[in-house]
Amino acid sequence: MKILVINRLLEEEHKELIRKHAAEAGGTVLFADSEDDIPADYEDCEVIYGFGMKNAVRNKNLKWFAAPSVGVDFIMKPGVFANENCLITNSSGAYGVTIAEHIIAVSLMMMRKLDYSYRESLSRNWSSPVPQRSLKDSRILVLGTGDIGCCFARRARAFEPESITGVSRSGICSEPAFDSVKKISSLDELLPETDLLVMSLPDTPETRNILSRERIALLPDDSFVVNVGRGSAVDEDALCDSLDEGRLGGAALDVFRNEPLSGDSRLWKTNNLLITPHVAGNLTLKHTLDTNVRMFCENLEKYGKGLPLNNLIDRNKGY
Amino acid sequence: MKILVINRLLEEEHKELIRKHAAEAGGTVLFADSEDDIPADYEDCEVIYGFGMKNAVRNKNLKWFAAPSVGVDFIMKPGVFANENCLITNSSGAYGVTIAEHIIAVSLMMMRKLDYSYRESLSRNWSSPVPQRSLKDSRILVLGTGDIGCCFARRARAFEPESITGVSRSGICSEPAFDSVKKISSLDELLPETDLLVMSLPDTPETRNILSRERIALLPDDSFVVNVGRGSAVDEDALCDSLDEGRLGGAALDVFRNEPLSGDSRLWKTNNLLITPHVAGNLTLKHTLDTNVRMFCENLEKYGKGLPLNNLIDRNKGY
Repeated sequence: MKILVINRLLEEEHKELIRKHAAEAGGTVLFADSEDDIPADYEDCEVIYGFGMKNAVRNKNLKWFAAPSVGVDFIMKPGVFANENCLITNSSGAYGVTIAEHIIAVSLMMMRKLDYSYRESLSRNWSSPVPQRSLKDSRILVLGTGDIGCCFARRARAFEPESITGVSRSGICSEPAFDSVKKISSLDELLPETDLLVMSLPDTPETRNILSRERIALLPDDSFVVNVGRGSAVDEDALCDSLDEGRLGGAALDVFRNEPLSGDSRLWKTNNLLITPHVAGNLTLKHTLDTNVRMFCENLEKYGKGLPLNNLIDRNKGY
Repeated sequence: MKILVINRLLEEEHKELIRKHAAEAGGTVLFADSEDDIPADYEDCEVIYGFGMKNAVRNKNLKWFAAPSVGVDFIMKPGVFANENCLITNSSGAYGVTIAEHIIAVSLMMMRKLDYSYRESLSRNWSSPVPQRSLKDSRILVLGTGDIGCCFARRARAFEPESITGVSRSGICSEPAFDSVKKISSLDELLPETDLLVMSLPDTPETRNILSRERIALLPDDSFVVNVGRGSAVDEDALCDSLDEGRLGGAALDVFRNEPLSGDSRLWKTNNLLITPHVAGNLTLKHTLDTNVRMFCENLEKYGKGLPLNNLIDRNKGY
């Protein structure tokens, strides 16, 4: 069994761990920094852990594609897999901690106007106090109650919000940090009662444009929006309109319909819009990378024994 | 009993509450936006709630000075009170929530390099990922275990740090969010084991320059410092040296030896130094203002009944 691992951030300790699990599963591993570095004898590998889409298109022998990301929309398109029965797993569980920290950080930056005081400090200006808002007593709505939504809810809870409501397809989630979890069908009733809307949704036909112009209009004045899921979930133009009118308190987007954002995008110049370049869950954080590798190794053990894999993607649902 | 209240941010609901408690205590209230607005017949007032230092210097009849701040160092200097037996209270308890949010916000901004990505976004630049750090698994040391330190520790706990250690004069604090609380005398042993140092200390002879050049040298490389107490606690030059050398990960200062910071201060140009203009606990946040007023009203009730006041300052300790 040939296993191809593509990740330039791996350190020796990670490689050692993967080699050990590969050996136990009866496999050999090749580590590559990018997909362009793959030698010919690994073009028919059985397992890929990393972003190896070019190989997936050609390689009929590929049986398991382990994505190091949570979102897998980019491989759910037709034609990506030469072997259509290839198993796909994602790395849900590795990113909750870091993305939850990102959400708390940008929410507080917006609510406390730290973007303003930081901007002023760049001009060496001791700025005057501007009205602050707080997570305390705020009504938080979390779209998506997976690992990221739950990790965020547990952290947000410590800030004594008025309420944290989760929204999911099923309306069911056992995480006690949510005061309640509702079905997605009740979204229109929930939005008008929301001070902070947090979006951590996968890209699926149902989530595309879920924050439409009509739904943005349902949000209260001075409310805040954070999106860390997929850019396709938000009507960016409608959001910019609301922000430029000064109706919303602010928005923080880490994901966009087109990435990287082009230099002439309207988003850069929008009022009270905090833009981060899809970094909420990047693998530079050791905890995230360690967890990612550990989860792959656990799955490799299962794969070697022929057991069902964790985090297996349901091709019908798309996550 | 004449009560003078100086605070331009008070709303009608706050004034109503204060009037009601004043009437019950047998007093009348005058509200002023600043100390320059005080009519002659209130120059001999018995109680001041607000920043009324000019009156305090002259007014021999002043019996109780209720500071809306936590720090009272500015009135602890000789000559501030014509009546040296004037009672002084502070507003410890009103600021914990907001200052704790500030500490979390700036800590995450620094650790996650959000200052960098925000700065790049101002130039419409989709920046490359830079190494991130996390509150998760970090060793947090909190100097000062009062309301602010405790509120911070409760929030930080949700981020799954390796440890949160409090440091106080007595070494005693019942807040369970601290893993342990040590005496200030053990500071030199604690600093080398610290990833994030949070300072929320009053200005007293013992805390002045407590983060000296020698102690900054004890902090590990890549550690972070946040100060929300008083600027006098930090050797600013030594901190700037360590930051400019790239030895520390970053620092976030909300308080300074000289405020406002002058335009030519070295601090503005220091590497990885996040400057906020003493806004961590400003009264623009409704929760902070509401709590502040409610605490004064509770004390006014006690004062009217001749009971001991809450938050009475010990002139020997200075807090």
